[in-house]
Amino acid sequence: MRYFKAIVEYDGTNYHGFQRQPNAITIQEVLESSLHILTKEEIKIIGASRTDSGVHACGQVINFETKTPIPIQRIRYAWNNCLPDDILIREVKEVDDEFHARYYSKGKIYEYHILNKELPSTFKRNYSYHIRKKLDSASMLKAAQYLVGTHDFSSFRASGCGANTTVRTINSFKINRIENNIICRVDGSGFLYNMIRIMVGTLLEVGFNKLQVKEVKEILEAKDRTEAGPTAPAHGLRLIKVKY
Amino acid sequence: MRYFKAIVEYDGTNYHGFQRQPNAITIQEVLESSLHILTKEEIKIIGASRTDSGVHACGQVINFETKTPIPIQRIRYAWNNCLPDDILIREVKEVDDEFHARYYSKGKIYEYHILNKELPSTFKRNYSYHIRKKLDSASMLKAAQYLVGTHDFSSFRASGCGANTTVRTINSFKINRIENNIICRVDGSGFLYNMIRIMVGTLLEVGFNKLQVKEVKEILEAKDRTEAGPTAPAHGLRLIKVKY
Repeated sequence: MRYFKAIVEYDGTNYHGFQRQPNAITIQEVLESSLHILTKEEIKIIGASRTDSGVHACGQVINFETKTPIPIQRIRYAWNNCLPDDILIREVKEVDDEFHARYYSKGKIYEYHILNKELPSTFKRNYSYHIRKKLDSASMLKAAQYLVGTHDFSSFRASGCGANTTVRTINSFKINRIENNIICRVDGSGFLYNMIRIMVGTLLEVGFNKLQVKEVKEILEAKDRTEAGPTAPAHGLRLIKVKY
Repeated sequence: MRYFKAIVEYDGTNYHGFQRQPNAITIQEVLESSLHILTKEEIKIIGASRTDSGVHACGQVINFETKTPIPIQRIRYAWNNCLPDDILIREVKEVDDEFHARYYSKGKIYEYHILNKELPSTFKRNYSYHIRKKLDSASMLKAAQYLVGTHDFSSFRASGCGANTTVRTINSFKINRIENNIICRVDGSGFLYNMIRIMVGTLLEVGFNKLQVKEVKEILEAKDRTEAGPTAPAHGLRLIKVKY
């Protein structure tokens, strides 16, 4: 048996998220089907992150085992030929049998993209959340710093979240404006269900001056989802990197 | 009667070009349907450029007449609400009854986008032509300068072109590389059918070192389509601006 790790990029627009489910097409299903075309085996993949419907990835990581004799230097090219053009294998390598994309992860980096101008963009419509009203991104950045560190993130957890503990560590939270594009970049140990989208939705309230900067600290300390802002839409979010 | 000029942006991926045709959805048809929803009138629009299937626009210009009483400052917002999110009205203004988007045009600017790196990008797959092999963009730029000026562009005209004259003027032809992105920007008086895509297809042969720089001059002088390179694919092309 051979063991593989792969880095996968995808445009999540046309998929119902990463994880396989009945009656809806998912990234996992398409990746497994493509591996079946490639190897004629029934292969089950494990993904580092269960990205939601509409969420994108530049650096999702998966692992799987196979008996295929295809040489390592030919796999990526052959595999990409079995995939639609909204899913791309960026890198494939052989790993030892212990590697597990989710359990071995030491952290993840996500970006949330906002287009902040009067008119939307037809070209970015699936990749950036359009907000017409001018955002105070400097205040958003200040408020985001309250979220950095090890905290109980109960206030930023969606109701469907089944995690055992709500304590997570955020290593950095950067918010950068380049002309009309605002990119929120979060580096953390791991995230609760919808945690990034709720954090961004709350910071947007700061950007609109509906919340004061220091109120974000109070929301975090309240450990109550109803105190935080709305969940920002999925299409602005992308998984950048999984760290090992 | 009131007369309007509008600037339109669109992602051409899901359309069979600009011009209305039976049995296939086009930009013109969707714009006319949206004006019908808005005004309850049967409105025929005139577009400055008949962009092909898959070609995009940031600055297509259209004109039309209507009896609608909607105030000018409300039209753009109301109209955009009647359109799908891959077509966007950027600007609307009232003009005099003589204005004609095509006849009044003094020139057009197009861009052709190339992604020049080993792996494609799932996010740019509809907006940029992916070329794996490293292109010599400096030689492409040199060769492109032979095309600047007033010339007979018969060599760069697709067989279906019904234009009366094959003489056109190119004011400038810039080719700029920023990291892995190459943007070819052409400013001209007007263009024959597929002219930009055939020019780009020919310059790509120079970029691949299959043609020498000076051979582009010979191809232009041959006035023979079979001397030029292949037609570059539609999805790399976008109409940037129509000049009046």
